[in-house]
Amino acid sequence: MANSKYEYVKSFEQPDLLLPNTWIVVRIDGRGFHKLSDRYGFIKPNDRRALDLMNAAAAEVMKELPDLCIAYGVSDEFSFAFHPSCQLFERRSAKLVTTIVSTFTGYYIYLWGTYFPDTPLQPGGLPSFDGRAVMYPNSRILRDYMSWRQVDCHINNLYNTTFWMMVLKGGMSNTDAEQELKGTISSDKNEILFKRFGINYNNEEDIYKKGSVIYRQYQLEDVKAGSSKEQEEEETTPLQAGIPSKSQQEKIRKLRRKAQVVVDHVDIIRDEFWDRRPWILSGKPGRLPAESK
Amino acid sequence: MANSKYEYVKSFEQPDLLLPNTWIVVRIDGRGFHKLSDRYGFIKPNDRRALDLMNAAAAEVMKELPDLCIAYGVSDEFSFAFHPSCQLFERRSAKLVTTIVSTFTGYYIYLWGTYFPDTPLQPGGLPSFDGRAVMYPNSRILRDYMSWRQVDCHINNLYNTTFWMMVLKGGMSNTDAEQELKGTISSDKNEILFKRFGINYNNEEDIYKKGSVIYRQYQLEDVKAGSSKEQEEEETTPLQAGIPSKSQQEKIRKLRRKAQVVVDHVDIIRDEFWDRRPWILSGKPGRLPAESK
Amino acid sequence: MANSKYEYVKSFEQPDLLLPNTWIVVRIDGRGFHKLSDRYGFIKPNDRRALDLMNAAAAEVMKELPDLCIAYGVSDEFSFAFHPSCQLFERRSAKLVTTIVSTFTGYYIYLWGTYFPDTPLQPGGLPSFDGRAVMYPNSRILRDYMSWRQVDCHINNLYNTTFWMMVLKGGMSNTDAEQELKGTISSDKNEILFKRFGINYNNEEDIYKKGSVIYRQYQLEDVKAGSSKEQEEEETTPLQAGIPSKSQQEKIRKLRRKAQVVVDHVDIIRDEFWDRRPWILSGKPGRLPAESK
Amino acid sequence: MANSKYEYVKSFEQPDLLLPNTWIVVRIDGRGFHKLSDRYGFIKPNDRRALDLMNAAAAEVMKELPDLCIAYGVSDEFSFAFHPSCQLFERRSAKLVTTIVSTFTGYYIYLWGTYFPDTPLQPGGLPSFDGRAVMYPNSRILRDYMSWRQVDCHINNLYNTTFWMMVLKGGMSNTDAEQELKGTISSDKNEILFKRFGINYNNEEDIYKKGSVIYRQYQLEDVKAGSSKEQEEEETTPLQAGIPSKSQQEKIRKLRRKAQVVVDHVDIIRDEFWDRRPWILSGKPGRLPAESK
Repeated sequence: MANSKYEYVKSFEQPDLLLPNTWIVVRIDGRGFHKLSDRYGFIKPNDRRALDLMNAAAAEVMKELPDLCIAYGVSDEFSFAFHPSCQLFERRSAKLVTTIVSTFTGYYIYLWGTYFPDTPLQPGGLPSFDGRAVMYPNSRILRDYMSWRQVDCHINNLYNTTFWMMVLKGGMSNTDAEQELKGTISSDKNEILFKRFGINYNNEEDIYKKGSVIYRQYQLEDVKAGSSKEQEEEETTPLQAGIPSKSQQEKIRKLRRKAQVVVDHVDIIRDEFWDRRPWILSGKPGRLPAESK
Repeated sequence: MANSKYEYVKSFEQPDLLLPNTWIVVRIDGRGFHKLSDRYGFIKPNDRRALDLMNAAAAEVMKELPDLCIAYGVSDEFSFAFHPSCQLFERRSAKLVTTIVSTFTGYYIYLWGTYFPDTPLQPGGLPSFDGRAVMYPNSRILRDYMSWRQVDCHINNLYNTTFWMMVLKGGMSNTDAEQELKGTISSDKNEILFKRFGINYNNEEDIYKKGSVIYRQYQLEDVKAGSSKEQEEEETTPLQAGIPSKSQQEKIRKLRRKAQVVVDHVDIIRDEFWDRRPWILSGKPGRLPAESK
Repeated sequence: MANSKYEYVKSFEQPDLLLPNTWIVVRIDGRGFHKLSDRYGFIKPNDRRALDLMNAAAAEVMKELPDLCIAYGVSDEFSFAFHPSCQLFERRSAKLVTTIVSTFTGYYIYLWGTYFPDTPLQPGGLPSFDGRAVMYPNSRILRDYMSWRQVDCHINNLYNTTFWMMVLKGGMSNTDAEQELKGTISSDKNEILFKRFGINYNNEEDIYKKGSVIYRQYQLEDVKAGSSKEQEEEETTPLQAGIPSKSQQEKIRKLRRKAQVVVDHVDIIRDEFWDRRPWILSGKPGRLPAESK
Repeated sequence: MANSKYEYVKSFEQPDLLLPNTWIVVRIDGRGFHKLSDRYGFIKPNDRRALDLMNAAAAEVMKELPDLCIAYGVSDEFSFAFHPSCQLFERRSAKLVTTIVSTFTGYYIYLWGTYFPDTPLQPGGLPSFDGRAVMYPNSRILRDYMSWRQVDCHINNLYNTTFWMMVLKGGMSNTDAEQELKGTISSDKNEILFKRFGINYNNEEDIYKKGSVIYRQYQLEDVKAGSSKEQEEEETTPLQAGIPSKSQQEKIRKLRRKAQVVVDHVDIIRDEFWDRRPWILSGKPGRLPAESK
């Protein structure tokens, strides 16, 4: 029995290949996490368990998809970046995005009990995430994207820290705190924190102030003047030599699986982070720590 | 501290609105389920627990997203259909697809223990799903899509049932069974099943032969001659009257939430299924069973 | 000498196939025609020569592309519609749009001298047109699109006729006329025309009031009650039978080339136009007038 | 009279913005130029009049669209490149492509008589062009695209020159010439040309061997070692500084209009062409020749 009579419906599927040789960032966001954080009693302004769970799920995504170069997370969002040379799933947008969303969601649910042992998940209130893919034509813009997220992390965390101090410690209503903070700049909030609550914002934990960056660990490079130049050259190497064959891809994936996936809370806006870890932007595996001797 | 310096990166996000007034089908597929079914010891050719888990997860997706009209599942795949009038997430493709994939994955992992109480999930081997959205311009083609999946279900199940009988009961090697089945038609396979194993394929369970269709239950309509005509008229009603406002959408969602979500294993190729449940293609809630008196 | 070293750049071309089984409307617009109409002294509010030139160019497009079902033009714009079953250029959007834009532009320039014998084209001021393709999922919406353009024609022409009468005959400044017309409705403008200038708008020429519709002429059908029903059925015919093969397409094209392309100035909002010319929405050639005896 | 009833059809228009900060190449191709070259008696293998007409039309396109950086043409095709910083028409693909196709077609038809004074255009056989836009993420790939077209020019011209010599001078049939050339490499064809017809291919005219490159003329730069490095830096400058405002765009357009548009027949594969004309890849106007004193 043939299926040809109805098979024409396949012709309605439209291709969604992302442009070759561009960075692909898949950003996922928690759906309705405001309500969800209430339901499961997340601590304000930051629930360490919730962030650790996000990071654990993201690290598993990095391990399952060696094509990923770097991930950056803050609050209930995470951004995953594929290198311009990435050929995974022929760069089909929906396939890349849904694989990340599904893998992330799976681990988030599976690992929930590890981080919230006393707060079981409730049917009807399961966490879920949506996602989308965005292309960035070169490393400069990819870095600007990452900087954008980290600046956002800083702005939001300073606000939230101050707001919740005013409410939880200062006894203000949500509305009053909101009202007072309207129009304030960073130094105002720093002053409120310090003068009213004796808090030096600089001493807050880095995971809250800087978010979480996840990448594969190789031997760090010494920072040399002009080293960022080398990365740029990389990017402008004639491409025809740069599209790896299927077997080359598989080989690179194997190499990458060997590297440890680490979670860090550091500045990713300045050059230093990138200069010392050139493998992130080059897409080429570095030297494993063991090899360094 | 403003974030304006890097905010330009937002301009790289490209819109992905699906064409108005078309059916949207989101099909999700298990990733690497061949390997996964080995890992967790799925029974061949059909593991009832695995199918029930798929259906349970899909039913939860239907409940969480009242905009969905119907879903059809077979094996490790499920298709979810949004009505042409659907305005959910402004019809953004990535948002619709990832929400379904994430919600489905979440429930699949969460409910796993209910259906596989003796086979705990293993980290490094979590089930995951990918997905994509396809547009179908009218109900005729949407039905052809559904028929395509159900015919596929039949073809695959007849093959698999025969193949695994030959291997498990007939003691043949996979290769030999495959070889013998090459080029056979339905009647050949029916004969093998009957003559060698005393199996009348017609008596196999409907969930295996017909797959699973999930929809909201209202009072069934009597089939009248020409009733399918009415549905067509529906579709050609001037559209300007047909795009519901935000509050109308919310009202319809509420109505839909009241209906029971049922899982059925019936023929969806012939007209009868659709004629008796006109609310599926019309997108308008029917009468609740309780209202029928 | 092989060209393989650079051929990888071809992989950056992205597919742009329009969704199957939807109407495709290519609308083209004159670029900077306000300035252009000054440069070449177009008569206000309507220059019959300019409209006739538009129609002549559009008719040539219809003749060169037998896949087109209908075209509707007003002022410096023209909309061309391909039937849902159209397979021309594999439904590649850019190819369809540019072919129409280029063919139209070519004839517009080539035929200019016929309609403006005393006003030669000037280099640096050549007319040009841009265009885009839009998909409409069914005939109801295609007709609403056409109605939208014809209503627009009416609104603009009534305004322009009144405005230019006030300026050219009434001696008002552009600004004063604009000011007085602000906020007026149709009946106000009709009254101004009649009371001040003795003009009954209904007696204006149809080409100005109704725009121009271009189609292939077959024998008109008698309007029967319910005949529009038949067209709807057409549209919901199972599609698999509906995608014509290459040779069928060529055969249909030949048939269509035999029909005369006519330019009409009639109401295309009401059913009558479409009911009497069922071949436009069905995409199937009608009976040629000669065959009618 | 409002038009709101039908205005919903506008919602079917889908955005087609090209990715920011990428090169945009619009390539146009003659439609059916094989047949057309027969109809109008184009000289084989190269008709100088036809190429000059192509170049004249392309130069007018360059003049009308100062946002264009460079164009390259061969045979009946032309490629036009917009700089990554280009904001013309908000980077809408259809608008960019159709504007170029229409402007080019217009001038091609308008200027026809200048280049073919004795061969008037025939209705029913007007030249027309189709086109498409392709994005290239960086200058390296843009140059590879240009190299690809120039290598293609070389390959085709060597073949055509040899083929037509064999047919026109050597008295061979088309089929015999084709047969003999099958599988030959460049040196074979060079030898046939030299031994049989006394032609040194190197002495053929550059317009045939190298195609035509069109750009704005500024003062040439001296080639310094490493100068290409500077261009790369350009490209990786933080982008937020790089998106010009509307008024900046207009200012740059004015500057560009002052430069002379020149048609050249030179090697564009090697660095020299680009190093000496850094304004092409940088998108920033150079010094006008007059300013050089």
